[in-house]
Amino acid sequence: MASSANGYVHGYHSREAERLTDQAGSLVELLHCDTAYADGSRVLEAGCGTGAQTVTLARNSPGARFTSIDISAGSLEEARARVTAIGATNVAFAQADLHALPFAAASFDHVFVCFVLEHVPDPDAALACLSAVLKPGGTITVIEGDHGSTYFHPDSDAAHRAIACQVELQRRAGGNALIGRELYPLLTRARFDAVSISPRMVYVDSSRPRLVEGFTRRTFTAMIEGVREAALAAKLIDAAAFDQGIRDLYRTAEADGVFCYTFFKGVAHNPPI
Amino acid sequence: MASSANGYVHGYHSREAERLTDQAGSLVELLHCDTAYADGSRVLEAGCGTGAQTVTLARNSPGARFTSIDISAGSLEEARARVTAIGATNVAFAQADLHALPFAAASFDHVFVCFVLEHVPDPDAALACLSAVLKPGGTITVIEGDHGSTYFHPDSDAAHRAIACQVELQRRAGGNALIGRELYPLLTRARFDAVSISPRMVYVDSSRPRLVEGFTRRTFTAMIEGVREAALAAKLIDAAAFDQGIRDLYRTAEADGVFCYTFFKGVAHNPPI
Repeated sequence: MASSANGYVHGYHSREAERLTDQAGSLVELLHCDTAYADGSRVLEAGCGTGAQTVTLARNSPGARFTSIDISAGSLEEARARVTAIGATNVAFAQADLHALPFAAASFDHVFVCFVLEHVPDPDAALACLSAVLKPGGTITVIEGDHGSTYFHPDSDAAHRAIACQVELQRRAGGNALIGRELYPLLTRARFDAVSISPRMVYVDSSRPRLVEGFTRRTFTAMIEGVREAALAAKLIDAAAFDQGIRDLYRTAEADGVFCYTFFKGVAHNPPI
Repeated sequence: MASSANGYVHGYHSREAERLTDQAGSLVELLHCDTAYADGSRVLEAGCGTGAQTVTLARNSPGARFTSIDISAGSLEEARARVTAIGATNVAFAQADLHALPFAAASFDHVFVCFVLEHVPDPDAALACLSAVLKPGGTITVIEGDHGSTYFHPDSDAAHRAIACQVELQRRAGGNALIGRELYPLLTRARFDAVSISPRMVYVDSSRPRLVEGFTRRTFTAMIEGVREAALAAKLIDAAAFDQGIRDLYRTAEADGVFCYTFFKGVAHNPPI
């Protein structure tokens, strides 16, 4: 979910929806295997987008009741269709802004936020809003990537420059593509208790063909490739250098290539009253 | 162990010995918890240095018989003293060059190499030498860091420049401080079978005070600080920038700081005859 005041750097077109599906599909175990909510608990998913994570939440915690919000009506529609398709009935959807939540204080037992704070101009303010609707002692789970965690073999300056375009475009849109490493200070500063950060590194070599295809090619490189026009329009790079960077990223998916990326998952508790 | 033909970028002085001890002390569980050899098996530790890993090997596999070699007589003396101090009697030491091993073909059931290939000008040749003394079907375990896996909060260009000095000095000495990510192609190219790479990420925030002290401050930052004179002599950086970089690395060890680094552990088998 992006703030209503800012563009969403990845865009809302269908290739992006496909990419997010691929991402959740190949990363679902890595990122979500240890997230489950008790029967009857009320959980807010803030910024559900097209529901890539929502289906996993609903499936992993069939007895929990989810409220999944997003700023985009189009995304919500896709999310609703996706949840319906898996037959889940424990998700309610609502169009809402993270910074103006239409819920009473302490409405939720848990809050879940995934790939959202990276797009928010003021993550401290967003976390304060989420803390307010969370019950005392309730948990918040935050998952974010960090593009600065990207390295690969063969190494390539052009590839790093192409990635830097995405980072810069996201920065100009008010976001932070390097936010993963900051989850600890963010959650601590927001006065959550017992902040615990768990990095989830995606390591890909050709002995892991599902990740080569699902992560290196179809998630990460496709994402960077997706900002080509915006990067050229903003004159961050010339076409030849960008295209070389993309070729070099695909090169890391060859038989002797290696690709590394790290997501960060933070869990913390709202303080008791 | 460095090749006899090249300098060892970290040097052999006592602070370095202390640093390697700190490193093994705080990382021992992360790197070595899953390395144990059967009673009676013969294991070659190639490049034991001052024995920082040798004591862990000897302790974790009391029934295995280790042969630990290094090119440096001084390092071997320290390693021997360290192993004696823990009362281990299952380690034999020998001064030898990795590229001219004084052992018959297929002498060992297993080979263990830790923080060695990063200093070797031709790691393919080194792996061929190790493969030759390993029995068919025997395992090789390789552990290496990768300085390109380093990122932190607060981010700092000066800190990255100081780290780049270490990488460049190591390169000029014939080594590769970014070798961790390459273990898969290296082991595959050396015709080992069933190559399996397992990254070991060190994630440090202030909820992990032992790692803040033992890794961020006393291992990584101390290592970079240790190349100050060499970096200035080589005119890779000016003193003010380097010192700012070191201050910024120490800054990541403060209460709101975060530090990330990844080691790579590879295990593979010599092909059957």
